[in-house]
This record gives sequence, structure tokens and C-alpha cells, in this order.
Amino acid sequence: MKMLALPFAALALAAAAGASPPRARTPGEIVAAAPAADWVTIAADDLIVMDLAPDRDGNGRCIVIQLIPPPFSEGWVGNIRTPAAAHWWDGTSVNRVQDNYVVQWGDANGEDKAKAKRLPSSVFNGLPQEYSMGISYACMSEPCKPGPVHERRMPFRDSYVAEVGFSSGWPVAGKIDEGSSTHDSEVWPVHCYGMVGVGRDMPPDTGTGAELYTVIGHAPRHLDRNIALVGRVIAGIEHLSSLPRGTGPLGFYEKPGQRVPIVSVRLGGEVAGLARYQFLSTESASFADYADARANRRDAFFIQPAGGADICNIPVPVRAEP
Amino acid sequence: MKMLALPFAALALAAAAGASPPRARTPGEIVAAAPAADWVTIAADDLIVMDLAPDRDGNGRCIVIQLIPPPFSEGWVGNIRTPAAAHWWDGTSVNRVQDNYVVQWGDANGEDKAKAKRLPSSVFNGLPQEYSMGISYACMSEPCKPGPVHERRMPFRDSYVAEVGFSSGWPVAGKIDEGSSTHDSEVWPVHCYGMVGVGRDMPPDTGTGAELYTVIGHAPRHLDRNIALVGRVIAGIEHLSSLPRGTGPLGFYEKPGQRVPIVSVRLGGEVAGLARYQFLSTESASFADYADARANRRDAFFIQPAGGADICNIPVPVRAEP
Repeated sequence: MKMLALPFAALALAAAAGASPPRARTPGEIVAAAPAADWVTIAADDLIVMDLAPDRDGNGRCIVIQLIPPPFSEGWVGNIRTPAAAHWWDGTSVNRVQDNYVVQWGDANGEDKAKAKRLPSSVFNGLPQEYSMGISYACMSEPCKPGPVHERRMPFRDSYVAEVGFSSGWPVAGKIDEGSSTHDSEVWPVHCYGMVGVGRDMPPDTGTGAELYTVIGHAPRHLDRNIALVGRVIAGIEHLSSLPRGTGPLGFYEKPGQRVPIVSVRLGGEVAGLARYQFLSTESASFADYADARANRRDAFFIQPAGGADICNIPVPVRAEP
Repeated sequence: MKMLALPFAALALAAAAGASPPRARTPGEIVAAAPAADWVTIAADDLIVMDLAPDRDGNGRCIVIQLIPPPFSEGWVGNIRTPAAAHWWDGTSVNRVQDNYVVQWGDANGEDKAKAKRLPSSVFNGLPQEYSMGISYACMSEPCKPGPVHERRMPFRDSYVAEVGFSSGWPVAGKIDEGSSTHDSEVWPVHCYGMVGVGRDMPPDTGTGAELYTVIGHAPRHLDRNIALVGRVIAGIEHLSSLPRGTGPLGFYEKPGQRVPIVSVRLGGEVAGLARYQFLSTESASFADYADARANRRDAFFIQPAGGADICNIPVPVRAEP
């Protein structure tokens, strides 16, 4: 890891000695070379496995979602575990596919009280609007030890807020009180491609988590702090993003026959033979190199490094353990 | 238009008088209310109409692309008009669909000199790398009259460069020399969802324009100034974004049978009965209101206005003339 942390220094030395600098690695090459210790295994019960009905050629369509860890969206994530354990989503459907926006699934009759599928009684309704979290980080050293948002604070700007970064593997935004000795922060996850959120109606309704969506287009960051984010698709998103677009308002399918049946939704712990999924630790030197390479492509194809990247253009690498 | 330009003032007056402020309009409502004068009609010969083979249910798949106007990418746009007029793309195919990235089309045998389809001789190869344009704006008044990038300079930040804005209906980024009396600028179009670019190999190859792609995911802004942007899809992008993802490297289809046949590509002037497409002038008051509403949603659903928007989250409205 020490070697990976020093690419700039190595380049500078090579140049000083008159040698030609080594060819810059692509982001993919950096990720492929990351040592095993830089990968974090995701607990099976923090995964949700959703099987759609096979496609017209009989191919399976399995989607794997990682639930977001505390302190984010804990009420909703708790809620979601209950219908998943109860197999409540089995027989529901994908009901909405809006181009460059979202795919949404759940009970197609959810809006109709007479027909709606009954949720397990332990699912909470009317959860508080905890769309962001107040977090304090103690200063353990001078300068302050970086807290979650500071861990990988990007040297780049964001179009929406003062701070963006990665917290324990997730893209987050926040407002940090630099003057405070405890680094008081308000932090929230952001709507990047593949993030999963909780459909809701107007405030103060906050949604139960029974109606979910994922982002299949340019990051709709205006939804940040307006809807709860509960996870992200880590495998199989192409089975959602390539679905036919709905032609009704907001991309809802107009005919019931167009909806895509959900065969089953399970917590990962229930799924025999599920791959062990891992994400690249956002605190690792490999990730720092990867993020830098995303922002400043120096590999052969590129003429002009961007000199920056928005946080949703630095997707956190995920893999099935080799 | 004057009334539309004063939403903040109107709100402030209402609040001062103790009246409840009018309900804020959604971006869609603002666009729907834009007067006819705020819409710019696109010349038919600045459109490219691409028909894919019908889908499995026999539905047509028509995609309409608007070519980018001067001064951007003029060499490539000129090149593209030639094979379009010669019907050169007829019988080629969509060959690559990479999730959250691009769809690419052209001659599937283009890499193989023996099999490649011959381009019209007037198509230039080895175009200069004019990925950005130097533009000067004369100061006609004090303060300087806003030039194209300044016309709608966003009060928001960009993760990549100093300046982003809209120039004659297109999203652009730039570096502007504020100190210069002529506002010397380097300006380039940016890779938002739906933008169309020219596939190329390694530098100094710049591509002819025979191989094209469009963005179907989060804006890959690292491609800005590395590849020529020649237009944007203004209708039918769902026929590209919902295609099955390719399973080969970079999302190329592995089997020839998976490629999606292109039946025809025509300049708009050749297509009988083509709708008259219009975009909302980015210099109009309606657009300013729309962009502001995209960045600060105040309509009923939203609890927390974002306070900003990245340029690719402010898509320029396009319509078929009613």
C-alpha cells in the first residue's frame, strides 16, 4: 500500500533522472491491482437480492442491492428488512421506468387502499424526516483527525454543496463546521447512478420503504435530503436500466401487462450460493489513486485531463470476491 | 416575458403584504408556460434522423439528433453531413451498449480495413484536434455585454472547470479571461446525457464522424475536450438507452446477431412529415426561471431546495412544435 500511495513522488523522481515516466495506469488497472486488504466484504444480510421474471429469451434477471449502513436512513433500512424477510415483495412488480431518471418497483396497487397489499405490522409508517445526520468527530490529533467526510475529501468542487466525499464506502455530501473543535457536521448520502431510495408522496409522508427506486440516469441530486436513500445496486443494474420506458406520466407503465414481475426479494443470508461482494475501501490508498485517476486521466487515450470530477463520476468499485 | 423575469420580486412583495406566496411552479410548468417567442426552431437540415429496425413487437424506433452549430466541431459536423446525404449509414448497426456510459453505432467492420465500408471520398480523416474554441466577445457596453458563455452563466459551481453555462442552447464549459477587454475565452461543449460524440482511436486520430456514440448515463465529463461532440439526441433516446447491454469488453456486443440494425440515417430535410423541433432559448427569461427552478425546487414535493445544480442536471427543453 505504501507504494501505491506515492505515484506522484515516483513520477517526479523519474522525471528528475531524465528517465521517461512510467505509463499512467487507468482507473481500472488501479482497481485490479488493489491488494486484498483494501477490499471490504459486505455482510450477506446487508444485501437484498431481487429476481425479476426471466426475460423473453429465458435469461434470469438478478439484482443485488447493498443496504446503507448506520447512521444513514436507519428507520427505513430497518423497515425494508421486515418485508424482505417476510417475502412481501414476491409477486409485486417494476411499475415505472423513466428515461434518464429512475426505475421504481413495489405494489402496483399501493395507492388504492382497497387493493393494496398489506405490509407486515412491524413496518413503521410516518418515519421522521431524517434525511441527513448530525455527526461529530473528535479531534484526536493536531490537525484534527479526519472524520468520515474528511477521510477522502475530494480536492474538487461540487455544484450543490460545500463538501462531498466518501464515508465508509458511500458517496456523501455535507456541511462541516470547521471552527468547531469536534467537527460538527451535517452529512447525507447523495443520489448517484444506482443509488436506491424510498418512494414517497407529499410531506410529511416519508414513505415506508415498500416502494423503492433506483437512479438510471444523470445524478438527480435535487432529490438529496428530500427522499431517503437506503442502498445502492451493486450487481445487475442493467436488468433495470435496459427495461422499456413507461409511456405514462412520470414513466409509469400504462398497461398492467407492461409491468415487470418480481419473482422474489430476499435478504442475502437466505440466498444459497450468493457471491461474497466486496467494495474498495474508500479509506484505502488504492481508492485515493483511483479517484485521482478518475479526475485526471493520464492514460494513453486522454489528451486533456479533466482536473476534477464530480462525486458521482467516481463510482465506488464493487466486485464479487475472486 | 418581463413578468416571468421577476419571480423573486413578486414573492418578496407578497410576503411583505402578509399574503401567502403563490405556489412555486415546477420546472415543467415554467416550460409549458413559455411564450412561443422563447422557442427556437431547428432547421431540418441540422437534424439527423436515424431509424433502427423495428423492435420485437414491430414498433418503430426513430431517433432524432440535432447537430451542434458553429463554432463547435465544424470539421466533424461537416463530415457527418456527407455520409448522411449519401445514405452511408444504412445497413450499419448499433454495436456497443455500455451501462451508465454510452451507446455506439457505425460500421461494425470499421476496424478491419479489408471489410470496412468505404466512406465517401469527401469525408476528411485526421481532422485537427479542435475540441475547444477560442472565442472573443467585444465589450459593447459597461459592464461588458455578456457573450455566449456569460449569457446564462450559472450562479452555481462546477466540479470540473471555472465556468459553465449555455451558449445558443447548448451546455458549454469554458475558461474566460475576465481581465481582457475582449473577454477572450476558450469554450467547449460538455458531455451531458444524450450528447452525441465522435468515436476515435488513440491520438492523433480524431475520428471521422462515421462512428458515433451518445451518452446514456451519468455525464462522463472526463471526455470533454478529449472527443468531439457533434450534437445531441432530441427525440427517441429511449430506443438507445433501453437496448440490452453488451457483454463484451467496453459493452460491445459479442455476437453479430446481437447488433441492432440501422435501417436508415437521413438529414432531416429528406424526411417527409418530420416534426418541427424547437428548443427553449437559453437566453430567454423562461429558461432563466426554469434553470433557477431546477436548482431550487420550491414546489410542493420538495422539503429542501438544493441551492445549486450541475449543468447536466439542467437539460435544455426541446419539443415538437405544438
